[in-house]
Amino acid sequence: MHRTPLCIRIIGVPGLPEIKPGDDIAEIIVNRLHEYNISLDEGDIIVIASKIVSKAEGRIVDLNNVTPSAKALKLAEVTGKDPRLVEVVLRESVKVVKAVKGHLIVMTKHGLVCANAGVDVSNVAGRRDTVLLLPEDPDVSARKLRKRIRELTGKNVAVIITDTYGRPLREGHIDMAIGLAGIKPFKDYRGKRDLKGYILRVKRVAVADEIASAAELVIGNGDEGIPVAIIKGLVYERGDESASLLNMKEEKWLFK
Amino acid sequence: MHRTPLCIRIIGVPGLPEIKPGDDIAEIIVNRLHEYNISLDEGDIIVIASKIVSKAEGRIVDLNNVTPSAKALKLAEVTGKDPRLVEVVLRESVKVVKAVKGHLIVMTKHGLVCANAGVDVSNVAGRRDTVLLLPEDPDVSARKLRKRIRELTGKNVAVIITDTYGRPLREGHIDMAIGLAGIKPFKDYRGKRDLKGYILRVKRVAVADEIASAAELVIGNGDEGIPVAIIKGLVYERGDESASLLNMKEEKWLFK
Repeated sequence: MHRTPLCIRIIGVPGLPEIKPGDDIAEIIVNRLHEYNISLDEGDIIVIASKIVSKAEGRIVDLNNVTPSAKALKLAEVTGKDPRLVEVVLRESVKVVKAVKGHLIVMTKHGLVCANAGVDVSNVAGRRDTVLLLPEDPDVSARKLRKRIRELTGKNVAVIITDTYGRPLREGHIDMAIGLAGIKPFKDYRGKRDLKGYILRVKRVAVADEIASAAELVIGNGDEGIPVAIIKGLVYERGDESASLLNMKEEKWLFK
Repeated sequence: MHRTPLCIRIIGVPGLPEIKPGDDIAEIIVNRLHEYNISLDEGDIIVIASKIVSKAEGRIVDLNNVTPSAKALKLAEVTGKDPRLVEVVLRESVKVVKAVKGHLIVMTKHGLVCANAGVDVSNVAGRRDTVLLLPEDPDVSARKLRKRIRELTGKNVAVIITDTYGRPLREGHIDMAIGLAGIKPFKDYRGKRDLKGYILRVKRVAVADEIASAAELVIGNGDEGIPVAIIKGLVYERGDESASLLNMKEEKWLFK
């Protein structure tokens, strides 16, 4: 009855410059935090929108250099999408899950089921025919960023790379975790007991996705001004598992 | 470049007593906040786990008083679930969406597609054969709580009632918003322009679900010790729309 209230803080980091291929995002973030007098503490979680990671990694494709395959041309007709974009999406995918008018849902190489393989067409470097791919391996990106932040600050933080997705059966977009370093994807209550000693049988919380959504509350302001959030005060389980564990294996899908 | 960092605080409120039918949850929360010296400010968001709302509303069913219908008996066989539980689930539902071994997915009266109509079997008042239904109308519950908190404190807060659910295609549970008062379910960027003047065509963020997930980071500690979170510092759009707008209409489902 006399426990202290838990308090988590989610701090948005504004004012990052336009990120270019080869940029050291970790250094840019650390410098920006310094300018804002935001201390980075052991165990903080740094949530980073995949878009700036992709830009730093040069995951930019000029559609004018893309020749659509026969398969891409056919899917472009079904979906009403640019055949060159469809070609790029197919190259990022292992499987087309749904192709209907207006929607191309695929499974990416990492097992993520999403529209357009997460390829961002909204605007890249101000060029109309330029699209941005997801990081090649978001877990690897997260681990590199975590390592680099440790080099720069001496602090062990967790890194979560996020992206915005629609959801089956539910309206609206939310942010989810696509790359992880230093934090487990789940908080597992299975087999644990509640206050009264009853076993909690089914609960395994996708805590990395919840943190992604929480961070979006400061990140997602509709521009690229706040691509990074720092989360302080959250107790979480350390680990090096892949964010791809959050993707349900196809044999378990109830909804197809 | 010189904008101030945004900071959101999520404060878990521990130590609430076991909630009983007829309890004034708003008053209990306000008193508890007072004891912890947590001020309630205009525009704060109070996130409340549906479980305590259901308990206060007396949404408790003793399965020993439930006689399963023929339909319930049949679905119990298919799913391997207690026929009395299946009967209770059917009474809360407008439609069975999926019934397979181990899973009974329905559409509730409010349009929410979820397992077991959100009926909680984990433990209710320590009795084995007792289950807890969702609040009869979670939006109405949220509005009453919002009104009562205003009466008690003079402050206009938003109220979000949440529950824990699995997700199609994605592993693990997260919290989602099932009842809203004083906050819009979505933050709508459609038609708005980003920093470079490009139109953001598709983004409509399910901000109420994101807040539910954010609150779960303090609420969801595997017991009933923290059923309430206060969110401070988040700028959101006020409104009185129903949380049921977050449920995708069946004709739009890509995954069935």
